Amino acid sequence: MDERAALALLSGELDAAGDDAAVVDDLVVTTDMLHERTDFPDGTTQYTAGWRAVGASLSDVAAMGAEATAAVAAYAVPEFTRADLLAFVRGASDVCDLVGAEYVGGDLDGHDEFTVATTAIGRLVDDPVTRDGADPGTDELVCVTGTLGRSAAALEFFERGDVERANDLFQFEPRIAAGRAFAAHATALMDSSDGLARSLHQLGEASDCGFAIESDRVPIDEAVRATTDTDDDEDALGRAITFGEDFELVATVPESELDAVREATAVPVSVLGTVTAREDGITMDGAELEDRGFTHGEA
Amino acid sequence: MDERAALALLSGELDAAGDDAAVVDDLVVTTDMLHERTDFPDGTTQYTAGWRAVGASLSDVAAMGAEATAAVAAYAVPEFTRADLLAFVRGASDVCDLVGAEYVGGDLDGHDEFTVATTAIGRLVDDPVTRDGADPGTDELVCVTGTLGRSAAALEFFERGDVERANDLFQFEPRIAAGRAFAAHATALMDSSDGLARSLHQLGEASDCGFAIESDRVPIDEAVRATTDTDDDEDALGRAITFGEDFELVATVPESELDAVREATAVPVSVLGTVTAREDGITMDGAELEDRGFTHGEA
Repeated sequence: MDERAALALLSGELDAAGDDAAVVDDLVVTTDMLHERTDFPDGTTQYTAGWRAVGASLSDVAAMGAEATAAVAAYAVPEFTRADLLAFVRGASDVCDLVGAEYVGGDLDGHDEFTVATTAIGRLVDDPVTRDGADPGTDELVCVTGTLGRSAAALEFFERGDVERANDLFQFEPRIAAGRAFAAHATALMDSSDGLARSLHQLGEASDCGFAIESDRVPIDEAVRATTDTDDDEDALGRAITFGEDFELVATVPESELDAVREATAVPVSVLGTVTAREDGITMDGAELEDRGFTHGEA
Repeated sequence: MDERAALALLSGELDAAGDDAAVVDDLVVTTDMLHERTDFPDGTTQYTAGWRAVGASLSDVAAMGAEATAAVAAYAVPEFTRADLLAFVRGASDVCDLVGAEYVGGDLDGHDEFTVATTAIGRLVDDPVTRDGADPGTDELVCVTGTLGRSAAALEFFERGDVERANDLFQFEPRIAAGRAFAAHATALMDSSDGLARSLHQLGEASDCGFAIESDRVPIDEAVRATTDTDDDEDALGRAITFGEDFELVATVPESELDAVREATAVPVSVLGTVTAREDGITMDGAELEDRGFTHGEA
């Protein structure tokens, strides 16, 4: 059973599971486990690891349209060192500060492989925005925040030994503010952690709709161009939409409410295309967009 | 740097850390990571693992005197199987049901070693009860809930191959109800997860006080006698107070309020002795009680 099958099994068992975060009363709760082999390439600093691990959970809070309240991390390494631990905590605290959450520490454990489990908690101000509300019967647009491909580019920089640039790219801003802006307007919302292509498939399945997007509207991060053959736009686009781990938000919004969303947040919101009927499938430039991306835990 | 040193470093860095759980607004949050090698002996069922991992975090919520709201777990194994995953979720859900919390799932990850990171969230009704409020200047008693030594006995049963009895003993009731009963009366509160002896040292250090306890008042679980030489009371007592992992509550309570605590909970509350001046030390039957116990993550 792979991770997706196991998660599907879980979401059948647990009422509150199955979306980006669980909802309990006015709280949203989400947890993630990351580890060295699959999530932290050689050259990742402990500061970046703390930032990124906690940021990944905060991104799930953003994807529910909630405010970020607090985060904790369980931190496991073969050997504790003062410098590493402090750097990790600073990274975790800084990403929390950026979105108005409090980093309140956690647990420490001895482990052969560097492993971090983070949990973030948010508070709902509006109703939670789930994945199943997109409606092809009305004029809805599908949008994405920020740019895509930063993590794909970072990985390439890690491989090239340009660890400074790679670490910079690996520190992302969890889209709490954008999530709050979407909360009052979006019909469906999730984060793009498994890549845009897979996110659209997940959103389409949950909402029972299709999407028609256009490739020239995909906001490819400029770092992607710097790590691909500049003459090969296909390659850059492919990385931007399938690699994932960018932690942007993917949302469906009625066309009439797009301006209101854009006014409510400083984060760029790109329109990728429209919400269509389920039978029209999920397409890019009129051709079927494959359900291809990053399944966490596959490695 | 061992885990205790690392935790001390963390609690200096983070305002909210350093007690059983962090406090953010009216919430308490706590996280724990457990793994096969140190926490789940051969023979531990996945049901027991789910129960115990989530129960450990709920115990930290109890130790703050809060109500239990929700728990999540990040679950990592080399290979997912349907039966294991469902059993784990059932154990996790059952321990949550027992204390009025909701188990809302979590993350799945591939990992060489079975590893679980759990987070529990509670809501404060009264002020949180921290570790630093015991006062030797008044007539205060030091108490413990339930019995001690269950986990020590369970480990012995695992070693003997009596896995059914061992698994039963490994499933404990998080002391949420007792924690709520203590909340309005106790001056200091923590859970006994590192063993009674170490807990008293931690409570004494935090509250700047000593304790004088009597060995014949220690509620040794009957399972301990079944796994030790019946003529050797020293051995049974030693296991009950140093092995830890029993997740009982240790509290200091003004003598005049003990009856009120006992009336408010069905869980047995044993008085071990009295709160004394710091310079009188931490003693059992008048002799110094060594700071010896279980430091998680040492193995």
